Amino acid sequence: MKIKFRVPATTANLGPGFDVFGAALTLYNEFSAEFVPNAKKTKFILSGHGKESIPKGKDNLLWKAMSETFNLLGETKYNLKNLNIEISTKIPLNGGLGSSATAIVGGISLANKLCKNKLNKSQIAELAIKIEGHPDNVVPAIFGGLCACAKNKEALRTTTINLPLPKLKVILCVPSFEIRTNHSRQIIPKNIPLQDVVFNISRVALLTAAFCSNDYSLLKEAMQDKIHQPYRGKMIPAMNKVLEKALNSGAYGGFLSGSGSTLAAFCSKENSENVKKNMLECWKTENVIAKGFILDFDKAGATRI
Amino acid sequence: MKIKFRVPATTANLGPGFDVFGAALTLYNEFSAEFVPNAKKTKFILSGHGKESIPKGKDNLLWKAMSETFNLLGETKYNLKNLNIEISTKIPLNGGLGSSATAIVGGISLANKLCKNKLNKSQIAELAIKIEGHPDNVVPAIFGGLCACAKNKEALRTTTINLPLPKLKVILCVPSFEIRTNHSRQIIPKNIPLQDVVFNISRVALLTAAFCSNDYSLLKEAMQDKIHQPYRGKMIPAMNKVLEKALNSGAYGGFLSGSGSTLAAFCSKENSENVKKNMLECWKTENVIAKGFILDFDKAGATRI
Repeated sequence: MKIKFRVPATTANLGPGFDVFGAALTLYNEFSAEFVPNAKKTKFILSGHGKESIPKGKDNLLWKAMSETFNLLGETKYNLKNLNIEISTKIPLNGGLGSSATAIVGGISLANKLCKNKLNKSQIAELAIKIEGHPDNVVPAIFGGLCACAKNKEALRTTTINLPLPKLKVILCVPSFEIRTNHSRQIIPKNIPLQDVVFNISRVALLTAAFCSNDYSLLKEAMQDKIHQPYRGKMIPAMNKVLEKALNSGAYGGFLSGSGSTLAAFCSKENSENVKKNMLECWKTENVIAKGFILDFDKAGATRI
Repeated sequence: MKIKFRVPATTANLGPGFDVFGAALTLYNEFSAEFVPNAKKTKFILSGHGKESIPKGKDNLLWKAMSETFNLLGETKYNLKNLNIEISTKIPLNGGLGSSATAIVGGISLANKLCKNKLNKSQIAELAIKIEGHPDNVVPAIFGGLCACAKNKEALRTTTINLPLPKLKVILCVPSFEIRTNHSRQIIPKNIPLQDVVFNISRVALLTAAFCSNDYSLLKEAMQDKIHQPYRGKMIPAMNKVLEKALNSGAYGGFLSGSGSTLAAFCSKENSENVKKNMLECWKTENVIAKGFILDFDKAGATRI
């Protein structure tokens, strides 16, 4: 029997909420696994974004997450011979949209289902954070919605807040160049000037209040950041220009999605087409071809289909 | 005619919200000014906390704030001859309870009233922040309630959010020793490790969500801090012990009030007496005599009486 999950794309940070805020979006990767008892070698069937570059053996991230799950649960029945894997990607790779998180969450979800759902969602999150290293993509990919993740030192537990977000659209502009997450992380200083910390703390308070009260007029100021975007922006010279264009086109707020290179904006349904068009055109003037998406918030998280 | 204002005490930071969060409390200083046209020297009439140490001339903080206001408004009629000043303090001095902020806000309010209320509340806040240097005490002292302040670089404007806080009591334990704000500020590093920044950002998100949703069960985790309390705690050896005692006695959360030395806890009305008693006793075992208060949130801010 083939087991299939779909896992949503996620946009993390939302400006000032570095490694804390993440939102699940209505763009999905699909992952399936089929147990073939007497097979001799796992088949990897790939389609969609990055199908040429995704590894097909033990280095495959979906398989790694499955393997970690089997280890955790003491399950030895499944291996890289008797499982056929299908991966269908609609989320651009290396774009700052949580495609790695989908593979990790998808892998844990598939393996957990094969092991008769021994893990609950919180345990899935704990394992996913352990593999990914930070919670802001995997947590919304599992639970859906918009999450603020507070990691404890002792356990990799997260406290999650799902917030209602009526009438809000998310615009993504994914440029044709990619940024490796690792490099994008190294570029951030290990120590942050206190005044910039205070700046971000104040914006995170505004951002949370904006979502809790659905007062989106706060988002322009609330999505400002001084901790990671100024540094990562050096790799994306048009970043400030495109984000400013989004605001001038009626977006409530704009930010670098995760570690980039995608730029994102939150706006009303009425303004969404215009914001997307103007952001893409702004990038075109910098000789960068970008692809645009208008998405909603995914509320379900990883789901068996 | 004598003009009189009362200005509330404020507790700032609330754990992770360094220089951002502040709340006005139901403990007040009172300030009055009376114009005596042909007098030759201002009389300073002081009563209450610190009446021996508060300066009685041009170095008086209330007068300084009045003087700045007169300058701003181009008013030259009033001076240190023809104004009689009364200061009645119920807020402990140098305890991290915003007593300086009350003098600044009181001074601006008195001078503004003498100048026929030319400044609105936002303009009063702008001037008060300019004099005080940070917004988290003066803003709630002016507007009342619980405020998250986002300072802009260009203007010293603040965005304020007043949050409803039903059924929440504030316990203050003010020890007999004082800490000078300036010293308490210098002790904080100029640069903060990125992982501690992420820690505080996540707690600020939780803290804001806790207040917005009135879910006080989040406060224990939400009031954790790694930016200023670990450093300031070195000057208050019993800090962690007393705060832990508050939590063990049923408080939702506890923190260092402003730059200290006061320790504060948020709790239910039912637990308030017990929390106060146990915090004071805990400090007693460290040979520190402390005074306890059980307060509500002040909702009005600076008010003419």
